[in-house]
Amino acid sequence: MPKGSLQESTFKLFRKAGYNFSVSSRSYYPSVDDPEIQPMLIRAQEMAGYVEKGIIDCGLTGKDWIMEQNAKVREVAELNYAKEGLRPVRWVLAVPNDSKIKKIRDLNGKRISTELVGYTKRWLKQNKVKAEVDFSWGATEVKPPLLCDAIVELTETGSSLRANNLRIVEVLFESTTRFISNRESWKNGFKRRKIENLVLLLQGALAAQEKVGLKMNVPSLSMKRVMSLLPSINSPTVSQLAQEGWFDVDTIIDEKTVRDLIPRLKKAGATGIVEYPLNKVIP
Amino acid sequence: MPKGSLQESTFKLFRKAGYNFSVSSRSYYPSVDDPEIQPMLIRAQEMAGYVEKGIIDCGLTGKDWIMEQNAKVREVAELNYAKEGLRPVRWVLAVPNDSKIKKIRDLNGKRISTELVGYTKRWLKQNKVKAEVDFSWGATEVKPPLLCDAIVELTETGSSLRANNLRIVEVLFESTTRFISNRESWKNGFKRRKIENLVLLLQGALAAQEKVGLKMNVPSLSMKRVMSLLPSINSPTVSQLAQEGWFDVDTIIDEKTVRDLIPRLKKAGATGIVEYPLNKVIP
Amino acid sequence: MPKGSLQESTFKLFRKAGYNFSVSSRSYYPSVDDPEIQPMLIRAQEMAGYVEKGIIDCGLTGKDWIMEQNAKVREVAELNYAKEGLRPVRWVLAVPNDSKIKKIRDLNGKRISTELVGYTKRWLKQNKVKAEVDFSWGATEVKPPLLCDAIVELTETGSSLRANNLRIVEVLFESTTRFISNRESWKNGFKRRKIENLVLLLQGALAAQEKVGLKMNVPSLSMKRVMSLLPSINSPTVSQLAQEGWFDVDTIIDEKTVRDLIPRLKKAGATGIVEYPLNKVIP
Amino acid sequence: MPKGSLQESTFKLFRKAGYNFSVSSRSYYPSVDDPEIQPMLIRAQEMAGYVEKGIIDCGLTGKDWIMEQNAKVREVAELNYAKEGLRPVRWVLAVPNDSKIKKIRDLNGKRISTELVGYTKRWLKQNKVKAEVDFSWGATEVKPPLLCDAIVELTETGSSLRANNLRIVEVLFESTTRFISNRESWKNGFKRRKIENLVLLLQGALAAQEKVGLKMNVPSLSMKRVMSLLPSINSPTVSQLAQEGWFDVDTIIDEKTVRDLIPRLKKAGATGIVEYPLNKVIP
Amino acid sequence: MPKGSLQESTFKLFRKAGYNFSVSSRSYYPSVDDPEIQPMLIRAQEMAGYVEKGIIDCGLTGKDWIMEQNAKVREVAELNYAKEGLRPVRWVLAVPNDSKIKKIRDLNGKRISTELVGYTKRWLKQNKVKAEVDFSWGATEVKPPLLCDAIVELTETGSSLRANNLRIVEVLFESTTRFISNRESWKNGFKRRKIENLVLLLQGALAAQEKVGLKMNVPSLSMKRVMSLLPSINSPTVSQLAQEGWFDVDTIIDEKTVRDLIPRLKKAGATGIVEYPLNKVIP
Amino acid sequence: MPKGSLQESTFKLFRKAGYNFSVSSRSYYPSVDDPEIQPMLIRAQEMAGYVEKGIIDCGLTGKDWIMEQNAKVREVAELNYAKEGLRPVRWVLAVPNDSKIKKIRDLNGKRISTELVGYTKRWLKQNKVKAEVDFSWGATEVKPPLLCDAIVELTETGSSLRANNLRIVEVLFESTTRFISNRESWKNGFKRRKIENLVLLLQGALAAQEKVGLKMNVPSLSMKRVMSLLPSINSPTVSQLAQEGWFDVDTIIDEKTVRDLIPRLKKAGATGIVEYPLNKVIP
Repeated sequence: MPKGSLQESTFKLFRKAGYNFSVSSRSYYPSVDDPEIQPMLIRAQEMAGYVEKGIIDCGLTGKDWIMEQNAKVREVAELNYAKEGLRPVRWVLAVPNDSKIKKIRDLNGKRISTELVGYTKRWLKQNKVKAEVDFSWGATEVKPPLLCDAIVELTETGSSLRANNLRIVEVLFESTTRFISNRESWKNGFKRRKIENLVLLLQGALAAQEKVGLKMNVPSLSMKRVMSLLPSINSPTVSQLAQEGWFDVDTIIDEKTVRDLIPRLKKAGATGIVEYPLNKVIP
Repeated sequence: MPKGSLQESTFKLFRKAGYNFSVSSRSYYPSVDDPEIQPMLIRAQEMAGYVEKGIIDCGLTGKDWIMEQNAKVREVAELNYAKEGLRPVRWVLAVPNDSKIKKIRDLNGKRISTELVGYTKRWLKQNKVKAEVDFSWGATEVKPPLLCDAIVELTETGSSLRANNLRIVEVLFESTTRFISNRESWKNGFKRRKIENLVLLLQGALAAQEKVGLKMNVPSLSMKRVMSLLPSINSPTVSQLAQEGWFDVDTIIDEKTVRDLIPRLKKAGATGIVEYPLNKVIP
Repeated sequence: MPKGSLQESTFKLFRKAGYNFSVSSRSYYPSVDDPEIQPMLIRAQEMAGYVEKGIIDCGLTGKDWIMEQNAKVREVAELNYAKEGLRPVRWVLAVPNDSKIKKIRDLNGKRISTELVGYTKRWLKQNKVKAEVDFSWGATEVKPPLLCDAIVELTETGSSLRANNLRIVEVLFESTTRFISNRESWKNGFKRRKIENLVLLLQGALAAQEKVGLKMNVPSLSMKRVMSLLPSINSPTVSQLAQEGWFDVDTIIDEKTVRDLIPRLKKAGATGIVEYPLNKVIP
Repeated sequence: MPKGSLQESTFKLFRKAGYNFSVSSRSYYPSVDDPEIQPMLIRAQEMAGYVEKGIIDCGLTGKDWIMEQNAKVREVAELNYAKEGLRPVRWVLAVPNDSKIKKIRDLNGKRISTELVGYTKRWLKQNKVKAEVDFSWGATEVKPPLLCDAIVELTETGSSLRANNLRIVEVLFESTTRFISNRESWKNGFKRRKIENLVLLLQGALAAQEKVGLKMNVPSLSMKRVMSLLPSINSPTVSQLAQEGWFDVDTIIDEKTVRDLIPRLKKAGATGIVEYPLNKVIP
Repeated sequence: MPKGSLQESTFKLFRKAGYNFSVSSRSYYPSVDDPEIQPMLIRAQEMAGYVEKGIIDCGLTGKDWIMEQNAKVREVAELNYAKEGLRPVRWVLAVPNDSKIKKIRDLNGKRISTELVGYTKRWLKQNKVKAEVDFSWGATEVKPPLLCDAIVELTETGSSLRANNLRIVEVLFESTTRFISNRESWKNGFKRRKIENLVLLLQGALAAQEKVGLKMNVPSLSMKRVMSLLPSINSPTVSQLAQEGWFDVDTIIDEKTVRDLIPRLKKAGATGIVEYPLNKVIP
Repeated sequence: MPKGSLQESTFKLFRKAGYNFSVSSRSYYPSVDDPEIQPMLIRAQEMAGYVEKGIIDCGLTGKDWIMEQNAKVREVAELNYAKEGLRPVRWVLAVPNDSKIKKIRDLNGKRISTELVGYTKRWLKQNKVKAEVDFSWGATEVKPPLLCDAIVELTETGSSLRANNLRIVEVLFESTTRFISNRESWKNGFKRRKIENLVLLLQGALAAQEKVGLKMNVPSLSMKRVMSLLPSINSPTVSQLAQEGWFDVDTIIDEKTVRDLIPRLKKAGATGIVEYPLNKVIP
C-alpha cells in the first residue's frame, strides 16, 4: 500500500472492494480482514524497487516511480484513481515564462532540479543533451530561476506551475497508478489468482465510482426510441411489467452522461426514471 | 450561484444533479464541467437585481430578496431546500414579549430595524402605518427593546426569537428558494431549454433526497392488500418472478412514510423488504 | 437513549431506521419527529435502573450494566452495534503479566479495582473468594500493580490491556447492547406494538449495514451453477428478461462474502454483476 | 497529579513553578525533570485515598474529595486555582424551582442523586434526615424532577443550575484545591523539605498570576502622596535616581487594583508608569 | 464594543487594560468585572448612530463609519489597532486595470458599488460628479467590471485589489479606530472621568504592545555615549550601582528600534543588556 | 530560512530577535520588515549547497546537512534550538534488537537505508566497510529487518527507535542548527556586519528563552550570603534602597536553577523575591 498522499484514497478504494484495512496512526503495518494478505505501507517512490527484488509480492505505485527505478515488474492493471479527481498526472519540463529555453536542446549546460533524477538523466541522454540534474527535496516549482534553470516536475492541472510563472516546454510522460506484481510471484498459481481476484474487485469498485444505475418504465411504443438512446456497450436489462404493454428497463451508465440523457429519455416516453448509486460494477 | 450560507448546500445539490462545480476559497468564479455555463457567485441579496438587468441570465435566490428588490424576473421553479432542513423560512414582525405593540397599527411612530428595508416600507405604506425603518447590519433580533421597538426578521424555527424574548406579531410572508431567469433570456430558445433541463435535474436530485426505493416479494394472494398500502401516486413497478405465484414489487416512496409502512407491509404478507437509496427521481 | 460513547452511533442507527433525533449540545432531552416518543439521554450505566423502576418505558444499554444493576427488565432484542466495529465487548479479570494470580482463587485477600463493583462482588461470592473491591473512576487498566492487585475491566481488542502489561485471567462474560423494556410497559398493548415496530426498523437498519444488494444477468444454462453459489437463506428474486434465455437474479447477501463470491459468480457465467447499497433489510 | 479537568492547568502551574512535566496522550506516568519526583496521574476523586494509605506520598486534589473519602491526610496548602478562573467551587443541595422542598428537613423520604454519596449520607445523618442517596454517573443537574427529587452537586457560577431550572436550597461547603501529604511522609525530613519547597514555588507561581510589577518615577515632592496610594502590605522598593530630586518606585501589586491605581498615581505626580509581568512572587 | 472582525482584538486590548470582558458565543451582552460599565456588542457600522442618539454613552468604531453616518459625536481618542497589524485602513476608489476611468470626473454616468453609500454620494456631489451608487452586500472587489464600473472600498495592503486586477484611482481617506462619546455624556462629570480613565488605560496597554523595557549596566566613562544613543523623549531612569563607577540605565523604547540599538549600545560600552516585556506604559 | 519542521520555530526566534517575517501559506518568499534582507524558504537539506555556491549569502541549517553536502561554508554560530526542546539531535546506526550486527565491521555486505547517503558512504569508506546504501524517502525506522539490515537515522529521544524495536550500534555524530555564511559574503564588510548583528540578536533572543530576571530586597547583613548563592558569571546589579540598610539585587539566571535557588535565597534573608520574564539577554 502506498504511504502518503495516496494512502487515504487507496484505503477507501480497498474498503469499497471489500477489504477492510485499518492502521494506527504511527504504524506502517496495517491490519486487514483477510489472513492471506500481509499488508505494509511503503512510499510510492520505493515500492517498485521492493517489488522487483521480491521483498514484497505486489503493490500499488505510480508509473512515474516504476520508470524512475527502471524496475522490472509486471504491471497487472492500471487503476485510474488519484488523490483528487481521476485525472492522470503529467511529468513536464518547465522553465520560467521569460526563459530563453524553448526546446530540449536549449538545456545544454543548464541546471535542472527534479525529484526524478534517474529518469531525467536517461531522458537527457536519449536527447543528447548535457545538463546538471540536481535532486530536489520538494517545492521544486519555486526554484527557478534563482536556484536552477529548469525543472522536471509533476503537474495535475498546471495551476501550481502558473502560480510560479513557469511555462511547460515539453510533456515527458503521463503517469497513472499501477498495480504491480513481482515477476516470480506472478508465476505462482495461488498468488496470481489472489492478485487477479483483488484487481477484479478493485476495478469493480473503481468503475462504480463513475457509474450509476438508471431504471425507468417504458411503454412498448417507446421502447425502440428509448433503447436507441441508451449506450450500446452494456446491454440494458429489460423485463416485462405485470401491467401489460409496459417494460422495466434497468441499465448501468456513466454518471457524466446522465444529465444529458435524462431529459432525452423523458422526451422519448420513459417515466418514473430513477438513478441509484452502485458499490461495484463487474462487466 | 448564491454566495454565503446557501453556497455549500447549493453546490451539493448541483453535484447530485450531475454538475460538478468547484471553487477555490477566495474566488467568486467557480468552474463547472459544462462549457455552456459560466457560473458566478453572487450574494442572494443582490442576485435578483442582476438577473432583472440581464447582467446574468439566471440564478438561485430567495423569494424574500426578489421581493425586497421588487425585481421583474421569471420565477422558473421553487427549489425547496435550505441550509438546514427543507423548511421554508418566514419573515415576521416581532417585538419584545412585554411590548405594548399587539398589531400592525401599533407601530405608528415606532422604530423598526430590519435587513428588508425596501419591502418593509412598502408593507407599512400598504397598511397605512408611519414608522421609522432602519437598515440593520445583522443580529437584528438582539436590538429590541434598547436599540429599536420592533424588528422585521427572518426565522426558521423561532428559537432565536424566543432566546431573545421576542414575540411574533405577524407573519409577513414565507420565503423559499427560487430559480429565476431574466425575462429576455427566457425568450431565447437555447437558453430556455438549458434552464429547463437544469431545473429538471435539480428537481430530480432534490426529490431523491426525500425519497427511497422500496422493493419486496409478494405472493399473489397478498398482492391486493400490499398494493392498497402503497401510495397510489407513483404506480409501483410489478414484475412476475420465476418462482410461480410470486411478484416483485418495486416502488419509490417518501422516506418519512417508510417507518410506518414497513410493519404494515410485513403484516400484509410482503417478505424480503428492502429499502435502497436514490440519486435522482424524475416522475 | 444512551448518553456518552454510544450516543452518536445510536443516533445514526435511529436515523437509518427512520427516526430523526436531534439534540443541542448541552441538552439531555433530544427532539424526535414522532410525537408518540419522548426521548431522554441517560448514561448507559444508569439506564437499566430507571427502566426497572418504570421511570422510563424502554431504553438501550449494555448487558453489562443490566447485570451490574441486577435489574428486572425485559430484554426485547440484542442490537449488535458498538462505537467501533460490531464486536461484542468482554469484561475480564486481568492482572499484571508477572503477577502470581493465576486463577480466581488466588484473589483471596487481594484488592480489585473495577467500575462494576456490584457484579464483581456477587461473582466473587459465587466463587467463594474474599477480596476488597474498590470502585474505579476510570483508567482502571493503569492501576495495577501500584494501586491494586487485579482489575475487572472491559476490553474490546485487548490492546489496552497489552499496552499496560496486563494478562487476562478469566473472561467474566460478553456484553452486547440490548433494547430493554419495563415489564409493565411490555404488557401495555400500545406500548408493546410501538416498541416492536421500533425494534423491527432498528434491526432492519442494522442488518442493512452488513448487507448489500447483488444483481446480475444469467443465461439459462448457467442458472443452476449460479444459484448454487448464492446463500440459500434468502431466496434470490429471479425474473425473466425480455431477451430470451436470460434471467435477472437479484439477492441480498452479507457484504463480507461479496469479495469471495463475485469472482466465482463471474466464472459460473453471470455477467453485468452489480453491487448496490441498502438502507434497510427486513427479512 | 490530578487526571482530568484540572490536569492541564496543573501542568501549567508546575511549569511556571519550574517543573517541566510532560506526558504522552495515553500514559498515566508523566516524566519530570527532577529525579527526586516520581509523578503519576490519578483521578482527583481517588487521590486522597491513595495518599491516606501511603501508596503515594503527596498529591493535589479538591477539598470535596478529601471529605467524600473522609481521608486522614495532612493538608499542606490551599492552592486556589481551577480549570477556569480562580474561584472556589461550591457543593449545593438543589431542587427544581417549583419543588416543595424548602429546607433540609423536607428531604425526608425523597430521592437524592449525587457524585458525593458518602459525604451526603453523613450530612443527612447529622441533620437527622432519612432519604435515598443514589450515585450519579454524571449530568446530575438534568435529573430532577424526572429521575430524582433533589441533587447534591458542584457549581461554580450557578449557570448550569439555572439552565436546568434548579434552585439552591443550601450550600453544603466550599471546596478548593489542596496539596495533601501522607502523614508519615510528612514526618520524614527529606520528603517534608521537598514538599515544602515545591509548595513554596507553586504558591510563588500562583501569586504571580494575580500580581504585576509597577514602577514609576516620582519627584521628591510627590513621594508622600504616591506612597500613601500604594498598598502597605508589600513595601515598595525605592531607590534614588541619578537625576537629583527624583526617585524610582518599584512595587508588586494585585493586577485587579492597577486600573484604579494608575489614574490616581498619575494625578499624584508619578510619571513614566510602567506595568510589567511576573513569573513568580515570593513574599 | 464592536461586534465582528475587531471584536477579538478589542477584548484582548481591554483585558490588557485591566478589564475582563467575557461573552458567551451567541450573546450580545458581554459581562465585565466593573459594575459601572454595561457593555453591549454592536456592529461597527451602526455604533456611531447609537452613540449620537445617546442610546449608548460611548463606543469604539472606525472613522469610516462615523463619516458614513455623518454622526455628531465626540472623538475622545484614536486607538490605532486593528485586526492584523497596527496599520490604518484606507478607503479608495478603484477600477479595473484596463478601465478608461483615470480621475474622479470620469465617473460621470457610471455605476459604483460600495458599502459606504452615504459618504460616497456626498463625496461625488462635492466633486460635481453624477453616478449611480449601489449598496454592496460584500465582496465588492469582485464586482467590476461585470457588475459595476468602479468601487469605493476599504483596503489594508492592497493585495485584495491586486488579486482582482483593480487599480486605485484615488484615496478618499484613511480610517482608524476611534473611541467616541455621546456629546451629552461627555458633559456629565462622572461619565467623562470614567471615559477618560478607560482611555488612559487602553492607551497605556496599546503603547505597551509596541514598546519594551531595556536595561543595562554602563560604566561612568561610557555614560555620555550610551545616553546619546537612547531616544530623548522618554528620559531613562538612571541609578548608581553599589559597585562604584557603574550605573544602571533603564528605559522604555519602541520595540522596532531595539534591533538597531542593541549592537550600538554594546559597542558604546553597555553590558548586561536586557530587554523585558511590558503590560502598560503611561507616560 | 529553513522550510519544514524548523520553519515555525525559526520564525518565532527571528520575531523575538526583532525581525518580523511573514509568509503566506503557499509562498516560499517571506516578507520581512528590513529592506536589507531578502529572505527565501529553502529545505534544510539543500541550504548548505546553495550557500556554498553563493546563490544565497547566508542561511540556517543543521550540521548534518552541511556534512551530507560536504559544503565549504563558514559556520558563524551554533544556534541551539530545535522543533521541540533545545536538545541536539543525533545521527545513529541502528539495527533490529535481535540483529547479529554488533559493530561497524558487521555491516559488510549488508543493506543500509538512510536519508544521509553521501555522508554514510564516506563514513563506511573511512571504516573500510563495504555495504549497499539506499536512499530512504522517509519512515526509515520501520524498514528493518524486512526492507534493509540497518539504518543511519536521526533520533532525538530514541523513542521512535525503541517503538520499532531497534537498537543503537553507534552514534555517528551530534547535529545542531548552524547559522552559515558563504565564504565570499563573509569577506564583504557590509554583509558581515549585517550577519554579525543578526546573529547577536538571535543569540540574545535564544538566551532569553532559558533565562529569567530575578530581583529581591536584601538587608546589609544578608548581602554576603545572598551574593554567594548567585551565579558569579553575570555579576548582579546591586543598588542601595532609600530605606537604609537595604539593597535591591537584580540578576539574570538560568530558569532551570530558579527552583533550587529561591528556597535558599529566602533562607539566606532575601525578601520580596520576584522572577520576571525576558525578551533578550546580551551579555
